[in-house]
Amino acid sequence: MISVGIVGGTGYTGVELLRLLLRHPEVQVTVLTSRTEAGRRVDDMFPSLRGHTDLCYSDLNIEDLKQCDVVFFATPHGVAMKHAADLVAANAKVIDLAADFRLQDLAQFEKWYGMEHACPEILKDSVYGLSELNREQIKTAQVIGNPGCYPTTVQLGLAPLLKSAETLIKPESIIIDAKSGVSGAGRKASLGMIYSENADNFKAYGVAGHRHHPEIVEALENISGQKDVFNHIVFVPHLVPMIRGMLSTMYIDLTDAGDALDVQALYEQFYAQEQFVDVMPAGSSPETRSVRGANQLRIALYKPQPKKLVVLVAQDNLVKGAAGQAVQNMNLMFGFAEQAGLEVIGLLP
Amino acid sequence: MISVGIVGGTGYTGVELLRLLLRHPEVQVTVLTSRTEAGRRVDDMFPSLRGHTDLCYSDLNIEDLKQCDVVFFATPHGVAMKHAADLVAANAKVIDLAADFRLQDLAQFEKWYGMEHACPEILKDSVYGLSELNREQIKTAQVIGNPGCYPTTVQLGLAPLLKSAETLIKPESIIIDAKSGVSGAGRKASLGMIYSENADNFKAYGVAGHRHHPEIVEALENISGQKDVFNHIVFVPHLVPMIRGMLSTMYIDLTDAGDALDVQALYEQFYAQEQFVDVMPAGSSPETRSVRGANQLRIALYKPQPKKLVVLVAQDNLVKGAAGQAVQNMNLMFGFAEQAGLEVIGLLP
Amino acid sequence: MISVGIVGGTGYTGVELLRLLLRHPEVQVTVLTSRTEAGRRVDDMFPSLRGHTDLCYSDLNIEDLKQCDVVFFATPHGVAMKHAADLVAANAKVIDLAADFRLQDLAQFEKWYGMEHACPEILKDSVYGLSELNREQIKTAQVIGNPGCYPTTVQLGLAPLLKSAETLIKPESIIIDAKSGVSGAGRKASLGMIYSENADNFKAYGVAGHRHHPEIVEALENISGQKDVFNHIVFVPHLVPMIRGMLSTMYIDLTDAGDALDVQALYEQFYAQEQFVDVMPAGSSPETRSVRGANQLRIALYKPQPKKLVVLVAQDNLVKGAAGQAVQNMNLMFGFAEQAGLEVIGLLP
Amino acid sequence: MISVGIVGGTGYTGVELLRLLLRHPEVQVTVLTSRTEAGRRVDDMFPSLRGHTDLCYSDLNIEDLKQCDVVFFATPHGVAMKHAADLVAANAKVIDLAADFRLQDLAQFEKWYGMEHACPEILKDSVYGLSELNREQIKTAQVIGNPGCYPTTVQLGLAPLLKSAETLIKPESIIIDAKSGVSGAGRKASLGMIYSENADNFKAYGVAGHRHHPEIVEALENISGQKDVFNHIVFVPHLVPMIRGMLSTMYIDLTDAGDALDVQALYEQFYAQEQFVDVMPAGSSPETRSVRGANQLRIALYKPQPKKLVVLVAQDNLVKGAAGQAVQNMNLMFGFAEQAGLEVIGLLP
Repeated sequence: MISVGIVGGTGYTGVELLRLLLRHPEVQVTVLTSRTEAGRRVDDMFPSLRGHTDLCYSDLNIEDLKQCDVVFFATPHGVAMKHAADLVAANAKVIDLAADFRLQDLAQFEKWYGMEHACPEILKDSVYGLSELNREQIKTAQVIGNPGCYPTTVQLGLAPLLKSAETLIKPESIIIDAKSGVSGAGRKASLGMIYSENADNFKAYGVAGHRHHPEIVEALENISGQKDVFNHIVFVPHLVPMIRGMLSTMYIDLTDAGDALDVQALYEQFYAQEQFVDVMPAGSSPETRSVRGANQLRIALYKPQPKKLVVLVAQDNLVKGAAGQAVQNMNLMFGFAEQAGLEVIGLLP
Repeated sequence: MISVGIVGGTGYTGVELLRLLLRHPEVQVTVLTSRTEAGRRVDDMFPSLRGHTDLCYSDLNIEDLKQCDVVFFATPHGVAMKHAADLVAANAKVIDLAADFRLQDLAQFEKWYGMEHACPEILKDSVYGLSELNREQIKTAQVIGNPGCYPTTVQLGLAPLLKSAETLIKPESIIIDAKSGVSGAGRKASLGMIYSENADNFKAYGVAGHRHHPEIVEALENISGQKDVFNHIVFVPHLVPMIRGMLSTMYIDLTDAGDALDVQALYEQFYAQEQFVDVMPAGSSPETRSVRGANQLRIALYKPQPKKLVVLVAQDNLVKGAAGQAVQNMNLMFGFAEQAGLEVIGLLP
Repeated sequence: MISVGIVGGTGYTGVELLRLLLRHPEVQVTVLTSRTEAGRRVDDMFPSLRGHTDLCYSDLNIEDLKQCDVVFFATPHGVAMKHAADLVAANAKVIDLAADFRLQDLAQFEKWYGMEHACPEILKDSVYGLSELNREQIKTAQVIGNPGCYPTTVQLGLAPLLKSAETLIKPESIIIDAKSGVSGAGRKASLGMIYSENADNFKAYGVAGHRHHPEIVEALENISGQKDVFNHIVFVPHLVPMIRGMLSTMYIDLTDAGDALDVQALYEQFYAQEQFVDVMPAGSSPETRSVRGANQLRIALYKPQPKKLVVLVAQDNLVKGAAGQAVQNMNLMFGFAEQAGLEVIGLLP
Repeated sequence: MISVGIVGGTGYTGVELLRLLLRHPEVQVTVLTSRTEAGRRVDDMFPSLRGHTDLCYSDLNIEDLKQCDVVFFATPHGVAMKHAADLVAANAKVIDLAADFRLQDLAQFEKWYGMEHACPEILKDSVYGLSELNREQIKTAQVIGNPGCYPTTVQLGLAPLLKSAETLIKPESIIIDAKSGVSGAGRKASLGMIYSENADNFKAYGVAGHRHHPEIVEALENISGQKDVFNHIVFVPHLVPMIRGMLSTMYIDLTDAGDALDVQALYEQFYAQEQFVDVMPAGSSPETRSVRGANQLRIALYKPQPKKLVVLVAQDNLVKGAAGQAVQNMNLMFGFAEQAGLEVIGLLP
């Protein structure tokens, strides 16, 4: 039994961490902070937790957090990096669900997040927490940058192609048409997020540039070991009138070698041992509701035209795209069963 | 470990039973039938179950079902009563999620369900499965009629008043304004249920008469021990554009004794030991999303005018209103911990 | 052709006024103000208006407004009453869509809206703009208090009973279980209103007291000519996960005289000449989508039990419940055809 | 004033035609047929029409239809082609909203619609009713094949590029990632269309092949005058949990000439005279709700990478994508103002 701290427990990734961790057999949540709700019971704010916890929010107190075995930051960008050094010094592990430890390229971080990085040294030693792809480094990491939701779908959706010994795709051809439920924007009082602005409506956003673009590029470079070939990928996110769920539809030009290959078999083999990545049978279409609330990502593959591959990837943006993957990383870091606390079946309907 | 059969596994209560039972520590689902999908893998139909089961649908074979310790009927009305005698004879327990064993009044059953009852003798010995109110009889029952979703909210919402030694309310004054998500109508190809007919829309239905009315009347009579005083209650159901969730708003005239009482304290005391019934603090408003996917029912009480009580009751119609209560009853029948398999936290947001 | 000003054109009632008035054959919108968006084109904010107007927002300038024949206030409570005197003096008519001119009882206004009334003299001369019930006074009014959305459904839903020479109902028995789409709460950046907090969810709110309660009481007193008999009515509003639409389900105890009457015929006769009030055939259930975008209110009547009447009333909260009724009032005030600009057919599906 | 017949008035395009035509100044709907609802008032089925019409459904009687000036077929594929010859002979014009007159290639028609064409001669003389692109032929047409919803977005979204004297794009590079509201599937009792299967869910469908693909290919060939270069375009439709609305996101490789061009200016110029096609300012993102209920199509353009163009096109699938464009074509055919009956402002929110 380890003790867990959560910094920022009033947002959607915070309450999602609680949903998973309060039923996790190996952990006890001992600290839960909030800038605005200190002193309030968490189940007063989120009645879904009534009967499952007596926790109250507290102010962020670094001494309390140092007592934890691991601290999750479910905070805005820029918070975790202020406290990481203290926690690492106290031997507490850190899992940041924001972007502070996602980008190794400091210039990109400053460009897209508008702030200087507070601890480049720790960043250098941190591990990017895409569980399936970086499992070994995660096991021994002290600080984890938990991936963005969109980048998770892109990486797991393309990794079998990029990890192949042969050159199967034309990297500059990648187009990512991504769609997310509204909870991806978090729990914020913002006019653009209110019900009557989003229900019964569909739109693209961030077409001119989105923070997940540099993260995707850096990650694809790391997976493939190739530099500078992914700079011109196109990434267009859209907003779907649903609470949870994300579907990325990716379009890729295959090389002759890629066209000749049985791509379905390649993916099935690549993920054969992965319980949280599901390569669906040929002809399937992954629905977001099939992963609602579950730490699961589903992939389907199509070749609608010669030398054209379509990869469909679905996940719950708050689970495999955020809190679930964070718990999966924690399980790896502490040697727990990787599925501990994560065997929730998706809520369908 | 007991073996469980599910008859009718392609509807929403069927797949909800699977969601709960596949993660239940004491049971194994061994038979799963479907008239239309025999031979098909259940996770092909419901991809949310991929990775959690290898079950296939089979035709209904009574010999297979007799081998089960308990058989759930997640079927239309009139199916369970055809097979109950055989199963009882084979010592298999039966939990019917339809209406075959809900009404002891045979005339009412025939009037509202348009069919003669196939096994009145078994009906007489069956137990009405409102877990909290009939716990002792459920423990030793062979056949359970699992309550309707609306009646569950009404009974648990009124029981503390009706069980009181004093006369606290005027029974003929009860008004039940109930609202349900669309999944309550089941998984059927019906024009009235399609997305574009229900989204962004709200309406009442069944105002002139609804099948749950006689069930509510009979149940309130049983709870209170009073005959013929509930015949004129008013029950108006409405359809909410959401998948899951049910809220009943009940309006009751209090007697002088009822008006003098601390109703909040009465309810809190009545349900103090119940883990699946939550009497919320004064001033609360139970949201359906706070019980999404959870076997939980939440109650709040208001006295907006002298001698007028408003009782708000929220549940997930597919869980505490159907499959969850059925599993709770199974737990009671087999001596398992009552919460076994039911400790799922509601999915919020 | 009259010239029209709209104060507060960035909220939902403001943009709804524009939708109706830009297609109205007798008016020209000449002034459109906003505290926050002055200088911006309105169709930049609301692209649905692209191609229909070149209007820009301006700061509120009282001299500009004085030039208008009529000024609509689609503002928060407390704005119209600050400017009404100036406008009246300049002979401009005023239609306030907020609450400043709804309650004649100053004490109630101060209690529920938390502010002193700025112009009690003008309030005294103002007319409550329930078009069908106060048509003659509206025609000659200088200042109109446009009714609240809930009170509109209650008044039109009960007027035939209250206007009868006989005593048909027990006034103290009235229960109003009302349900509204989320747009009723306006266009505000508020945490409680964001998509992920409201979608796939249902709840009651304001059970302990809602600002429309005193308005309903005062209005019912005026309609019936009876004082002090409506104080104890019960009004419980609920929030429906839909953008537009409102349904009020009302429960009323009938007197012997009321029970003996053909209530359906009473309503049909009472509203025979009204084109915006539709008494549906017996057995109907008014759906909110049947009035989506239309200045229409539909009523259906049921007697589910002896001496119990259920009145169902549906409207679009932004049209007959707000902007549409305001335009209807303007038409009356200026002698236009009452349906001018209001003959839009509801958007179904 | 012309007389109009509608065959198939119980589906969504049928009721949408009624919404537009009942308010159209130049037409009277005289015949309205239904196989299943003959004798029933249409406003009994669609209460949104109460007060706007007394029409009843009748059986399809070809003699009645011959009396009409124009007959709309809002029927399944294969109905219009059975009656077109009779109507043409009687000098009635025909506008088919299904696919019978969309494809000139008979082999493609048979392949995708599974039936032989009943009147190839009439098909040859029919005109494809994309109003903005084929305006002159439509004016004199006897029979119109009204375009599919997806193909409308694709054609208007690409026409300025394809009509250019220079080669601006690489035709084989075109990727169409399209998203539609659920009403696009019509009003049918189908399990896949029920509320609980579609709400809070997102998925792709028809990835392996969709009937609109050959229509898109043929149309792009006609617009560009180039054969065989569009066969390998990729078209992936998705289903959005909303009633109405369609957004197509198109990805196109530009040639050097295309890359050098001011594409925004090209589009603005191309559509300068079109009132139903809106080229939005650079940086905009067209929301489907901005065209809800309106005969309007909005376009926005982005160049997120060198030589890569993203075209966003939004419309209401039932209006500009179906019934609205059909009325626009009727206006052209009869010399009415093109906007007659179509000046409805979109319903936002």
